[in-house]
Amino acid sequence: MLPPGVDGTAFAAALAAFKEAVGAERVYTSDEDVALYRDAYDVQWGLPGERQVSAAVAPTSVEQVQKVVIAANRYQIPIYPISTGMNLGYGGSSPNYSGSVVVDLKLMNRVIEVDDKRHFAILEPGVSYFDFYRYVQERKLKVWIDCPDPGWGSPVGNALDHGVGYTFGGYRDHFYSHCGLEVVMPTGEIVRTGMGAMPRAETWGEYHYGVGPYIDGLFSQSNMGVVTKMGFHLFPQPEAYRSGTVFVPKRLDLIPLVAEVNALEHSGTIGQPDYGAPLRRLSMDPAVRALMGKAGGPTDAEFDALAADHRLAAWSCQLQFYGAQGVVDASWAYAKERLSAAIPGATFEDGLAYRFPLTREEQQKVPHKPSLGIPNLELFQSRSPMNPKPSEGHVWFSPLIPKSGEAILEAQRVFAEACRGIDVPTLFGGGPAYGPLSLPQTWMYRAFVFITGWPISRMDPQLNQRVYDAVLRLVQIGAEHGWGEYRTPPAFQQQVVQTYSYNDHALLRLQERIKDAIDPNGIIGAGRYGIWPKHLRDRKT
Amino acid sequence: MLPPGVDGTAFAAALAAFKEAVGAERVYTSDEDVALYRDAYDVQWGLPGERQVSAAVAPTSVEQVQKVVIAANRYQIPIYPISTGMNLGYGGSSPNYSGSVVVDLKLMNRVIEVDDKRHFAILEPGVSYFDFYRYVQERKLKVWIDCPDPGWGSPVGNALDHGVGYTFGGYRDHFYSHCGLEVVMPTGEIVRTGMGAMPRAETWGEYHYGVGPYIDGLFSQSNMGVVTKMGFHLFPQPEAYRSGTVFVPKRLDLIPLVAEVNALEHSGTIGQPDYGAPLRRLSMDPAVRALMGKAGGPTDAEFDALAADHRLAAWSCQLQFYGAQGVVDASWAYAKERLSAAIPGATFEDGLAYRFPLTREEQQKVPHKPSLGIPNLELFQSRSPMNPKPSEGHVWFSPLIPKSGEAILEAQRVFAEACRGIDVPTLFGGGPAYGPLSLPQTWMYRAFVFITGWPISRMDPQLNQRVYDAVLRLVQIGAEHGWGEYRTPPAFQQQVVQTYSYNDHALLRLQERIKDAIDPNGIIGAGRYGIWPKHLRDRKT
Repeated sequence: MLPPGVDGTAFAAALAAFKEAVGAERVYTSDEDVALYRDAYDVQWGLPGERQVSAAVAPTSVEQVQKVVIAANRYQIPIYPISTGMNLGYGGSSPNYSGSVVVDLKLMNRVIEVDDKRHFAILEPGVSYFDFYRYVQERKLKVWIDCPDPGWGSPVGNALDHGVGYTFGGYRDHFYSHCGLEVVMPTGEIVRTGMGAMPRAETWGEYHYGVGPYIDGLFSQSNMGVVTKMGFHLFPQPEAYRSGTVFVPKRLDLIPLVAEVNALEHSGTIGQPDYGAPLRRLSMDPAVRALMGKAGGPTDAEFDALAADHRLAAWSCQLQFYGAQGVVDASWAYAKERLSAAIPGATFEDGLAYRFPLTREEQQKVPHKPSLGIPNLELFQSRSPMNPKPSEGHVWFSPLIPKSGEAILEAQRVFAEACRGIDVPTLFGGGPAYGPLSLPQTWMYRAFVFITGWPISRMDPQLNQRVYDAVLRLVQIGAEHGWGEYRTPPAFQQQVVQTYSYNDHALLRLQERIKDAIDPNGIIGAGRYGIWPKHLRDRKT
Repeated sequence: MLPPGVDGTAFAAALAAFKEAVGAERVYTSDEDVALYRDAYDVQWGLPGERQVSAAVAPTSVEQVQKVVIAANRYQIPIYPISTGMNLGYGGSSPNYSGSVVVDLKLMNRVIEVDDKRHFAILEPGVSYFDFYRYVQERKLKVWIDCPDPGWGSPVGNALDHGVGYTFGGYRDHFYSHCGLEVVMPTGEIVRTGMGAMPRAETWGEYHYGVGPYIDGLFSQSNMGVVTKMGFHLFPQPEAYRSGTVFVPKRLDLIPLVAEVNALEHSGTIGQPDYGAPLRRLSMDPAVRALMGKAGGPTDAEFDALAADHRLAAWSCQLQFYGAQGVVDASWAYAKERLSAAIPGATFEDGLAYRFPLTREEQQKVPHKPSLGIPNLELFQSRSPMNPKPSEGHVWFSPLIPKSGEAILEAQRVFAEACRGIDVPTLFGGGPAYGPLSLPQTWMYRAFVFITGWPISRMDPQLNQRVYDAVLRLVQIGAEHGWGEYRTPPAFQQQVVQTYSYNDHALLRLQERIKDAIDPNGIIGAGRYGIWPKHLRDRKT
């Protein structure tokens, strides 16, 4: 296919220029090659609305990226840069603007520097979490990486997407823990930010700002340039890890539980907390399903009685401690003391314990590897007795809610009610997507994301349509309550951006103005997160 | 005086519009009133180059700020927004572009929200650290603020200036720990960023990014808008504090000392470390002065022998622990164990210990209050036996160096050598500004700032000129080694920005392009951090 608005002659000339820039063998135009860039989780898979790729180009150096961008400007070719394109459930490698040429940075995969005394790294976008981890392990460097569940993604790409992980504090927020960028601008010019802007500076990976306006954020969830290098702050390898779980008896104990756990987390006493609902074990019981599914959900008394009858806690929270052995032990003791004082009837259970570094065998046995910064692909082994036929794919609905027990209870109620009209099987089997036992994810350092996954099938466009409608409806209902998405696939970006509407969409209009100033031809990532270049701005789809 | 390029008629009309916007009593034009906005620490005090203010306007609401900005556009009046204007040593309240009208936000001083269960605050720019602290104390909220030495500054203004404090981890970096902005753009339009862009969202102070490109950084050390509200993450009040000091015997022990302390700090085990040079106690001894002052400085052997002869350590580092009592005790034990293993001959001394909350009497007795988040003005009581006649003012030279012992030793050598040609008394008395005992400040969470203060006198323009020349020379020498300023007064901003020169100043040119897009009339903060509006761009001073 041709990129939209580009004739065959111009496209042929552009492809020739791309081949000149990166070598003919790294310009992909065959149907087989180009099909690899389709988003296998696209809700519009196989339909006219599916986002297509016209060609792909894989530069191996920043100079080649510059040449590609300059050629794209010359021939007015829309391009869409990806790092590894593995943000599955959020769009994969396919562009917002169908027919764009993907600039695939997977071959720019150098680990430029890892410092385990100053605790930073500088990476290219094609480096995967596996690559990064292997580099650190082989050299026995005393730093951890922080990775999301699937390890095949790119630290650079994930950070630019506002992606998240599982270890300690701000390290979990991958854009927040980045430090310094190299960017090929839409004009083809290279900009380095922060201390990278100072020749001979060795503090690129240490100090964020350099001097003057700090522009790094412009390049996240955006289409303002092609990021070709990125620094990251790293977590020093701790001496030990231990986990422990608190159980609380009553439904409304969730409120003090979250407040206490927040205090532990925001003071650096614990890493990521993991909330649980032990009553989920009863979810095959028809009486429990009926109680949980009734309009308005169970009353507090019914909920508490159910828990008491089954000798189950209303809620649990696993706490994770990283540090010296004596410190993690003292921290767990303190957590128990504090939680006992705040919540009558709280009980506790010791969890796993490790000393670092782990042997290879010990690493293999860790049940949830990303909590220790070990990348893996185990999330994809999701076949289980509860879910014998895993879905072929999914999209995520990812609203941010306040970090309080009150907000969880309110969001449970609102989204459970919203799900009543939605006829879609859930991703992991079981009952409706939201209900009185739903709990948020805690990846973000300071906010909850009340995420659910929705199934996609490449065989079943009707299912996909129902999911599309359901997610759009949830986006609207969330927005009515002030719960905005933190990230969303291209199919939903336009609508999600519209919900951030303060002052007649003043933020979006400002972003568009900046886009026009730095990408006058609208070459890069047209439509990403709702930002269309001037000549396509009335498109709005 | 009139703003440059503005005739008397237009200025009179603008002042009338400002009075209409904010009330006549909050538009200041008399010489006495306007003189209050002079920078008392301006190296060009009283000289033609001194940055002057033509008038000042003090709005009390965001709507009034909008009206002022719109009037400034209409009459092409350069305006310079300040929060409290107390960044003394970095420019105070005076504008880069002499003759600008100061928009003084001191009357916008509402603490909008402080949440001590989710640990955030939302503040207006006129709130001072004292105001903020008083608000928290009066309500007995279980959060700390993080403040720089003088407490009369503004959390919002300090954060926007990339200012720093003294407590735990990322909280010390005030822009890094901010969360969400409200900004009056140069057009007069209000933009809210992050979750502030979503109507009804309650997560403004919790989640940074909202969705799409993250633009907050554009408004720091910049002139892209007038920030009228800002969210901040807050540190939960810890149960206890203790400090302890490590002493190491040899000069080169600084290298493992910094590496070990980095690991403690970046893992959240300690808050801010404070490096010391016990040999400074000998600095009145002529033989020691001669040794420290000789070309190339003392050899390692001479340094170590001097320390041994006087039974003094080569270096010290005070460590500060925040958390539960058991945790801070275990952390100090671990620090001792780890430092003993890494550095033969390391010794330790227990420091202060507190349990929180402190009584008012206990607060008064804390020797360095900002370490506990208590704002004060004690820094200004700087008369001492060593320095009986404190200077009338100062400018800061603030280069960032890598967070390593090697970098400290190298920067000591380079800057000591640079100081040989500089004939200026030092700020706090004693020998030259830099020497073999100089140590960096550790305010930044991940980098060292090798700061020195240089005296200013409103009576002695020759001294000021020598200081100006000296600091400019140090800026150049620093840049030759990759050590860039993190912040600098208006008198030096142009030159400092020029040192961030990668790819023919590509970053500055991009910042200018963005400035032109969002402030087409070049109304706000002309010249701040080297960014001039288009019509003044060839000015470059």
